[in-house]
Amino acid sequence: MQNWKLTLTYDGTAFAGWQVQPGLRTIQGELQSAIGRILGRKWGDPPLPQGSGRTDAGVHALGQVASVALEAPLPAENLLRALNRTLPAAIRVLSVEPVSAEFHARHLAIGKTYEYRIFRGILCSPFLAAYVHHCQWKLDPALLREAAAQVVGEHDFTSLAATDADLAARLRTDPGLAVPSNVRTIFSSDWTELPGDLLVYRVRGNGFLHHMVRNLVGTMLEIARGQFPAGSMAAILEAQARSAAGPTAPASGLFLHSVEYPAG
Amino acid sequence: MQNWKLTLTYDGTAFAGWQVQPGLRTIQGELQSAIGRILGRKWGDPPLPQGSGRTDAGVHALGQVASVALEAPLPAENLLRALNRTLPAAIRVLSVEPVSAEFHARHLAIGKTYEYRIFRGILCSPFLAAYVHHCQWKLDPALLREAAAQVVGEHDFTSLAATDADLAARLRTDPGLAVPSNVRTIFSSDWTELPGDLLVYRVRGNGFLHHMVRNLVGTMLEIARGQFPAGSMAAILEAQARSAAGPTAPASGLFLHSVEYPAG
Repeated sequence: MQNWKLTLTYDGTAFAGWQVQPGLRTIQGELQSAIGRILGRKWGDPPLPQGSGRTDAGVHALGQVASVALEAPLPAENLLRALNRTLPAAIRVLSVEPVSAEFHARHLAIGKTYEYRIFRGILCSPFLAAYVHHCQWKLDPALLREAAAQVVGEHDFTSLAATDADLAARLRTDPGLAVPSNVRTIFSSDWTELPGDLLVYRVRGNGFLHHMVRNLVGTMLEIARGQFPAGSMAAILEAQARSAAGPTAPASGLFLHSVEYPAG
Repeated sequence: MQNWKLTLTYDGTAFAGWQVQPGLRTIQGELQSAIGRILGRKWGDPPLPQGSGRTDAGVHALGQVASVALEAPLPAENLLRALNRTLPAAIRVLSVEPVSAEFHARHLAIGKTYEYRIFRGILCSPFLAAYVHHCQWKLDPALLREAAAQVVGEHDFTSLAATDADLAARLRTDPGLAVPSNVRTIFSSDWTELPGDLLVYRVRGNGFLHHMVRNLVGTMLEIARGQFPAGSMAAILEAQARSAAGPTAPASGLFLHSVEYPAG
C-alpha cells in the first residue's frame, strides 16, 4: 500500500464541483474513475481520493491537493503519465509524490491561498468569461485594499460563511450540540491591478469556511462601489451574521491557488 | 428595414457549430433567439442572421461576420448593448454597423483569415486545452513552413476538402451535374513559433472548403513529423484526392480570425 499526494489543476466550468455526487460530473469522481481505469479490476473498487477541501461548481484550481492510498505498486512517473492520459483535458495532475501513510490532504492542511479575478472592461472576451467575474461597477481600489487589510488576523468569520441550514436544524432539536468554530486566521489579503482591466484578490489563511472567499469578495465590492460605508468590514465581521455582509460573488472568478502542509 | 453587419467573437467549445440545428445549441441559433428576445413579439419571428460561413462544433471565432436585416428601428449602440446583454457570455458582439440592403456576409466575402494553434509542451493547462491542439510529436518547424509555402497561390484543394457524400451520391444518379469548383486562392500561409510552446499557423485566402484548414494542418503535421516526405504538399494537391492527404486536425485549435469585404 502506497499513499500518494497529488497536486491538481482544473477548469471547474464543466464540473459540479469537487465532491463526488451521483449522476454528476465532479473532479473527485473523475479522479476516482481514472484511478479505477488505470488499475483495472484486479485491485477492486478504486479508493476515493481526499481533497484538501471542496471547491464549488464552476470554481477552478491551480494547485488543489488530494491524497489517495493505492495497493497497486506503481512508479510515480507512470502514475502521473497514466492519470494525465486518462483524465479529461480539463483536469491535469501537476505532480504525484509518494507520502507516508499518515498524510491526509484535508486533515493536515495548514494553509490555503485563493485568488479571485475581476474583469472591469466593457467587453469581456468569450475566452475570459468563465475565468473572471465581469464587474462593470465603478470601484475604488483604495477601498478594496482597506477592506482586504481589515480581515487580516484572527477573526470569527460567521458573517462571511454560507448559512448551514442543516446545522441550524440540528441545533433547534439539540441546543447542546457543539457548534464548529468559525474562527479562522488570515495571513495576507490584498488586491492587485493587472494589465487588461483585471483586478486580482489574493488571500492566504489557515482555513476557509464554505463560500468565505466569494462572500468576502462580494462584500468588498459593495464597499468599493459605495453601497456599504468605507471601513465597514470590521463592523461586518463583528456582527457575526451573514445578513450583515454582501452577496456571494460568482464562482467563475475563484481559483484555489495552493495548499500548504507542514515541512517534511 | 435596416440591414446590419455584426462582427462576433465566440468560444465554440460548448456549441454545435455556427449553423442553426433543431435541438442543438449553435451560434446562429443563439444569435437569432437573442434578436427575437430584444425585439419582442411585435416584430414577428426573428430573421436568421447569415454568417460569412459555417464554423464546425468546437471551432472558435475572433472576428466572424454576420448580416441581418431588422424592421425595428434601433440605434447601433443600443443594438450592440442589447445583444451583449442577451447573448451567453461565450458569444460577444464586437461591433454593429448599418450597411446597405445589398450587404450579405457570405455572398460578398472576398477574403478570410484563419488561425490554428498548436501546443507542444508536455503538460497542457486545463485553461488552454479547449483552444489548442495538444500535439506532442517532434515537429520540424522548417518542414511546416515549407509545406505552408507550397499552398500559396491558386490550387484545386480537393485533396484537403471534406468528402461530400451527398454530392457524390447525386453525381452517381446524375453524372451531368455541375460540380462546384474546389479551386481557391491562398494569399498567405505561414507558421510562427510563440513563447509558451505554441506554434501558430495563419492562413489567408479568398475562400476555404469544408474542413480545409484542419485538413491542411493535419497534413502539414504529418510532413513535419516525417510521416509524409518533405516537400510532398505539392504532390498531395495535384493528386486531387482526399486519401492523398493527412487526417483532420482537431476543431479546438481553429479560430476564424477575420473576414474581408470590398471597401465601401
